[in-house]
Formats: sequence, structure tokens, C-alpha cells
Amino acid sequence: MPATRSTCPFCAIVAGEDETDVVYRDEAAVAFLDRRPLFPGHVLVVPVRHVETLPDLDTADVAPFFIVVQRISAAVPEALGSQGTFVAVNNVVSQSVPHLHVHVVPRTKGDGLRGFFWPRTKYAPGEAASVADRIRRALA
Amino acid sequence: MPATRSTCPFCAIVAGEDETDVVYRDEAAVAFLDRRPLFPGHVLVVPVRHVETLPDLDTADVAPFFIVVQRISAAVPEALGSQGTFVAVNNVVSQSVPHLHVHVVPRTKGDGLRGFFWPRTKYAPGEAASVADRIRRALA
Repeated sequence: MPATRSTCPFCAIVAGEDETDVVYRDEAAVAFLDRRPLFPGHVLVVPVRHVETLPDLDTADVAPFFIVVQRISAAVPEALGSQGTFVAVNNVVSQSVPHLHVHVVPRTKGDGLRGFFWPRTKYAPGEAASVADRIRRALA
Repeated sequence: MPATRSTCPFCAIVAGEDETDVVYRDEAAVAFLDRRPLFPGHVLVVPVRHVETLPDLDTADVAPFFIVVQRISAAVPEALGSQGTFVAVNNVVSQSVPHLHVHVVPRTKGDGLRGFFWPRTKYAPGEAASVADRIRRALA
């Protein structure tokens, strides 16, 4: 059963049911520690309004939500002395909770992680042009 | 030598030096195919204005930039028949080009990737509270 506002664990945090790990909240977004962090200080930023994925976010909510993501991505390295961050969203696939959440993970060189760990591929001749055309048409 | 506006490969694409793989452009952002995709249709979205990382993005540019990211994250699965997307930014660490770029990667269940592939850890007793306090102070 997909989570709804009444069963969604992130809506429960938004509603104030557990403030322990909340690091920031305003009208648009709530930020809290992921309980199973990749590294200590791994924060999740969620919109107050329950939407499942990034495409579902109301256009009017994009600015206030991502301004919080931006602030968290500045504050986490400052707070923890890390060098950078990995900021990521899984939409649908690999998305554990169907309430949009942006991971902000502190990163430091030599931490053993990689920005991408997957084998990169190459386009066959002509393939890139075809793929680009399909995306352009979907945007038109 | 860090890339500047004059040497930055993404600024060159923004300037229109190679339109081949550009799928979208407006006043705020340009979106183009990553030449070494994780999967075909892997798009990079960059702000027109050269900034290095997400925290460097002018607050006024957050909305127009992320509205484009949102549009691309809807268009890519629609264009390619994928089920979802992985949307990610490497800030500083693992960042190959020092011009902010958001990866939008098409995802389909069973594609062999994971949202996160790294061993997750746990907080020791009291550690989460301490980490949360440090982030709150950095935000204050």
C-alpha cells in the first residue's frame, strides 16, 4: 500500500511527532538526520507538503524547498568539517519512502565513496542524437 | 588550475559552442547529454552563470534553475520509457568539472544500479544528538 499523508513516516516527522533529529524546519521544508546514515550528518530534506517525487512538486514550492536544500548543503560541511557534499534524490526507483526527500551527505576526499561507482557507457554512433531528440520532444 | 569562465567546458556549452547534445536551454539553465552516461539519456543540467557548487548558486537563481531540473526529471523518463530517475550533485568531492551540474539519470527497476550502494552505518548512543546540534548551530 503506498504511503499517504496519514501513514507516511516523513509526514509524521513534518507533523512534529519526533523532533529529536530535526535540524531545520520552516513553512516549506523539514530537514532531519537519516537514521541509517552513509556518514554521520547525512540529512534528509523533505517538503512539508506530501508529494511523491520531484516532478510532483508544485512549481511554486520549488524555490522555498531548494533554498533549504542549498542551506543544508552549506551547513553540513561547515558543521562537520567535511569538504563537500553528495546531494541526491531517488525518484520512484530505489526510493524507499514515497515522500520526496533529498539526501545531503557530507563528503571528504578519501572517505571511500565515489560520486559514481557505476560503469559508465558510451553512445553508439548516432545514438546520442536520437536520444537527445526524444528528450527534446518530451520537453516541447 | 581551477576552471574559470574562460576555460570551463560547461561554460563553452552554455555559450553555444556545441549544440549537438543540448536538449534544453533558457535564461537560467542549459541541459545536455553526458557523453559518458550511466545510461543513455543521462542529462547534465548546469546554470548559465558559472558557479562551482550548489551553495554558490545565487538564491535568486535557485527557482529558475531547479524548475529546469524538475522539468528534465519528468521529461527523461517520458522520453525513454524509464520508470524513474536518479538526480544527483557532487559538491567539491567527486566533482569532475567545477561548474555546478545536476545529473539526471533514467532508472528502471532491475537496471542493476542502486540508489545507494554504500554500507550504511549507525549512530552510537548520543552521537546523533551531538551531530544534529552541530548542524543546527551552523544553520543558526
